[in-house]
Order: sequence, then structure tokens, then C-alpha cells
Amino acid sequence: MKEWEKNIRRVIPYVPGEQPAVEKMVKLNTNENPYPPAPGVARVLHELNADTLRFYPDPTISLLVEELARFYGLGRDQVFVGVGSDDVLATAFLTFFNSELPVLFPDITYSFYPVWCQLYRIPYKTQPLDENFRIVREDYYRENGGIILANPNAPTSIYEKLELIDDIVSHNKDSIVIVDEAYIDFADGPSAIELIRKHDNLVIVQTFSKARSMAGMRIGYAMGNPELIKALNDVKYSINSYTLNQTAILAGVEAVKDEAYFRENIKRIVDTRERFEESLRALGFSFPKPAANFVFATHREIPAISIFKALRENNIFVRYFDMPRIDNYLRITIGTDEEMDILTSSLRRIIENYK
Amino acid sequence: MKEWEKNIRRVIPYVPGEQPAVEKMVKLNTNENPYPPAPGVARVLHELNADTLRFYPDPTISLLVEELARFYGLGRDQVFVGVGSDDVLATAFLTFFNSELPVLFPDITYSFYPVWCQLYRIPYKTQPLDENFRIVREDYYRENGGIILANPNAPTSIYEKLELIDDIVSHNKDSIVIVDEAYIDFADGPSAIELIRKHDNLVIVQTFSKARSMAGMRIGYAMGNPELIKALNDVKYSINSYTLNQTAILAGVEAVKDEAYFRENIKRIVDTRERFEESLRALGFSFPKPAANFVFATHREIPAISIFKALRENNIFVRYFDMPRIDNYLRITIGTDEEMDILTSSLRRIIENYK
Repeated sequence: MKEWEKNIRRVIPYVPGEQPAVEKMVKLNTNENPYPPAPGVARVLHELNADTLRFYPDPTISLLVEELARFYGLGRDQVFVGVGSDDVLATAFLTFFNSELPVLFPDITYSFYPVWCQLYRIPYKTQPLDENFRIVREDYYRENGGIILANPNAPTSIYEKLELIDDIVSHNKDSIVIVDEAYIDFADGPSAIELIRKHDNLVIVQTFSKARSMAGMRIGYAMGNPELIKALNDVKYSINSYTLNQTAILAGVEAVKDEAYFRENIKRIVDTRERFEESLRALGFSFPKPAANFVFATHREIPAISIFKALRENNIFVRYFDMPRIDNYLRITIGTDEEMDILTSSLRRIIENYK
Repeated sequence: MKEWEKNIRRVIPYVPGEQPAVEKMVKLNTNENPYPPAPGVARVLHELNADTLRFYPDPTISLLVEELARFYGLGRDQVFVGVGSDDVLATAFLTFFNSELPVLFPDITYSFYPVWCQLYRIPYKTQPLDENFRIVREDYYRENGGIILANPNAPTSIYEKLELIDDIVSHNKDSIVIVDEAYIDFADGPSAIELIRKHDNLVIVQTFSKARSMAGMRIGYAMGNPELIKALNDVKYSINSYTLNQTAILAGVEAVKDEAYFRENIKRIVDTRERFEESLRALGFSFPKPAANFVFATHREIPAISIFKALRENNIFVRYFDMPRIDNYLRITIGTDEEMDILTSSLRRIIENYK
């Protein structure tokens, strides 16, 4: 080993869901939205004056911050915007988790959390979900250096009631609690945004990648009390002053403005999910009540890995995690009705052939 | 102070050049390009199929990596792409500067370097430039945890010959040396890219914000041996798998493809700079021989701060740094011939009024 190689930070990076380049595939593996973004997004890009691209974008991203603040009924100083919710969460880990005590999160949750801890050398301790993949609130009553909870959780798709979040935050007045609400728009319960007024140590993170159909534009945001938002911005300005490019800022504003399209988009996906739940049950699958744009399902007879591989052979991509406790489950993104019908037919054939 | 406030990472952030919102201003304060990006950039945005924005972008950014590799005659595994060169440099600091020994860089250089060191708790030591703002090579022969040099340097606009870079890297086989070449396209000497073959511990960082007129799109890149590039990518995948959005990837490819436009754009700016140098000299300014799209000038009689303020009153924005050794200098971006004529006339009036 050369001497300079010793100075390199060695990490085990997060592995994103594959982006296969297959024609005519059914892609239900990365929780993308099957419908296009709001029409205003296309318009603003098609009308863009490209000459303005020679200028740096607004480092405060004020147009989009204002639009989000208006949408959620918050102050402009209560909203932080970043390059997707992963960027926002990474910045939040770096900014808020600076204790010697371990950060707490469930054993089964978004697999990026331990990656950020390792990268930034943040001590952490996972707390096991119960046998139904539910959060055990008492596990978060102990001393800690911060807490992060995904709600709805991934990959389980389970939504925990606001009362549980409120209770955990109330028991942790000495640390910062982050609630990762990437999938909240598909849940049948409220966001924890309403708890921001009550708790000054609470940060909510959301994204444009799911309900707003803009994974390709990379926009995420955090909401919380002005002191927390300022701390996030200070760290952001210490990494990269200009994060969102001009197209993302303009497109993001259009997406937030069109609330009718947003509601309609969510309704279509929830309707499809409910229809698909029926089909899955009929085929012998069971799953926690889904509250996101995906279902986390296990079959009573056939191992998940076998189904996963058989679907791949039919150019249908779902997500399989080879990890303890969940290695017999598939995470299936909700696509269009047509895509779910193709998947259902394929699953029926796989199950019949298995017998 | 509340208990949770103790867990917040406190930083003194970088302060970017102001983005004034004044009508009819002459904006020469952030080294932006006065000409639009290559025509293909506008075309690809105007023709974008917005439906594709619902998909995550390619996390490997392969289209743009390939185009850059082709342009610079490198392998695809020798190019890393990020959200502007600030993002690339921040990731490089986090990845490569993990020693207990101090990182070395000049006392007068890009003011983001100490900010990244503070953020990531990297020890550093600045080495004074000589009285002509030149790098003293022997200062970099001592033990260190890494070296970063901007060439051409900012805000001095001075280009150091490749022989000096080669010599410093040769004296530092045990650490990683980063050369920040944000302004290299305006220099009358070669990039250090040709030294990559010779030195496996050398990283070159460049940007689309200056010569490619795309500050608003946020694209930067690093080049070096495949092991260094892999280490950068591993850290990137541990922060945010999907950094560049779809529009940035597509627009970036178009900008690199159009080499004729790129060369023409640079030539226009260098021609304007040479004309402006004559005007500045005639007005009593002196400055190091400029090798970037800006000039770093001081007047023989009038304090820089007075000129700065007087220009502002005329809606002409240049950059002033209230810092030791350079507080009597102005950093003036090269705009169009017309903009430089307006600036020259204004400077002439200011100087006449001062007498």
C-alpha cells in the first residue's frame, strides 16, 4: 500500500436499486412515480432562456423556499432545500448528529442511515422493530445522540400514528429527532409537520421524487424551527453554496404550485395500490397495511428470492433485500394499473409453475 | 442553551459573491461568462421529454463521464462528475484529506479551502505566497496530509508553469495533491492533466461554470488515476447516489461536444481581457499577468475599497476582499467588450473626481 492511500476515507457505499436498460421492462424497483410531473414543469423547461444559465443560481433558492413555505403554511426561515432528500438527510446527519452518544434508528429502515453514520463517523445503535415491523416506542426513551425515523417506514410501507412520533419526540427533548417523510403523501394519516410548532428539536424531511414525479430533478427539503434550518444552511454554505441548478428551482416551483395535479396524482396511485392489494392477497401474499407507493409482501409458499428471479426473467423488476428478517419479502412499487396487471399475471404464472 | 443545541455542528460558512437584483447592472463580481452556453444546451432542454423526469437519473452519470473522457483523452474510470467544482472539491477534501498532518495551501487562494477544512475537521496550514503572489515551491517540500493548489490561482489570476506543479507533486509522493483548475481554459499554458499519467497521487478539478458558461447548471469534474476516482465515487455514493439531475447531464454532454464553440468563447474573453488590460494600465492600475477570466488589480493612488464603493453606486459590481495582503485589490471579471467599456469609463470618472 502506498503511503498516500492511507489518507483515503474508506467507505462501504449505499447501493441504489438498479436502473436496468431493458426495452419494454416493467420497472417497479425504485419507487418512482408512473405518471409525469405537473404540466408546468415541462412548460418551464421548454421556455427556459438558456442564456441565463451562465449565471450562478440563487444560493438561497428563495423562489422554491417561498413556494414550499406557502404550501405548508410555514415561514420562509423554516424550510431548507437540497439535491434530493438524500442530500438533505446527509447534510442533516452532518449538522445535527455530533454527539458521542449513539444515534438511534430501527433495525429495518432506509439502508442509507448506517451509511451516513459510517461516513461521518457518527456512533449509532439500531433498535429492533417488533415482530410486525412496528416501532417499539420505549426503545427510544434511552439516552442518545439523535433519532431518525422514516414514517411511513421503508421498505415496510408502515405508517405510525402521529401520537407515537409526538411521544418519542416528547421523551427526547435533549436531542434532535428527524422524521423522514419521503412517502408521507401516500399515507392515510397526517405529516408530522404540525408537530414543528410544539417541538423545537424536530426536523421533517420530504422529497419531490415520489408523489411529485421528479426523481430525475433531485429536489428534497427539510422543515423545522428557524434555528435548525439556519444550522443546515450554514453547513450547506460550507460544502457547496450553489446546490440546486436553475432548472431544478424553476421546475420545483411549478410542481408545488399545481396542487390539484399533485392530489390527483396521489389519488391515482393509492387507488391502484388498493386494487393491487386485493390481487396480491388472492395470490397468497401477505403484507403490512401499505401507506406508501409500494407494498412489502411475502408469499406463504414461495421464497421471495425465487419470485424476484422469475420476475426478472420476464423483465419485471422489483426490489429484493438480502438482509436479516426481510429476506423473504419483496418491495413492489405501485406503477400504473396496466403495469400492476402485467405483474399480477406474471406472479400468477410463477405461482402455478411452482406447484 | 438547550441540550440539543450542543449537538449542532457550528461552522463559519463561505460567503459567495453577491447576486444583486438590480436592473441594468454590470455584473463583474462572480467570474461568470458573458456569453451563453453552446447552442446544443438550449436545444436539449427545449426538447426534453418531461415524462422521463419521474425516473432517477443515472447514478454513474455515464453519458457525461464518457463525453469528458473522450474530450480529454482519458479512460472512463479516470473521470468523476459532481454538482459544480465546489461539490467535487468538498467530496475530494472529505475523501483524500484524512491525515493527522496538516493539509497545505497558499495563504491567498480560493477562500473555500479553509471552510472545508473546518467543516470536516481537517488540520491545515497556509503557506504564504511571495511578495508577487507567486507560490514558493520549497514551502511544499515539508511533511503534510495533502496539498491543494489553484492554478491559475484565485483571486490573483496567476498561472504557474507545469514544471512547478510537477516539482511539487514529485516532492510529495506520500500525499494526494489536488490542482483546482477552474480557470485553466483562459491560461496561456497547459493543464496538469498531462501529469496524471506520471503521478498516481494527482487529482485535477475543473468546472463548467467559467469557460463553458454554465454556472447555472452546476457541473464540475475531477480527473485522476482510477483508484482515486473510485474512492471519490464511493464517498459520493455514501452521501447522495443521484447528484446530477437529468437536465444537467444532458446539457453537460452538449456543451462538451461543441468544441468549436468552446474555443471561440474562450478566445473572445481572452481578446477582451487583453484590450481591458491596456485600458487598466492607462488608468494607473497594476496587476499580475492575468491567466483567468478576471484581473486582480490595484491602483497606484486610490484605495480599492473607495473604487469598489464608487462602482457600486454606478451599478457596476466587482469583487473586493477585506483580507490581509489583498485589501487594496479588486477582482474584476471579464465581461463583454461593451461591459468593459462601461467599466473603463466609470473608472476614468472615479479617478478624475478623486484628484
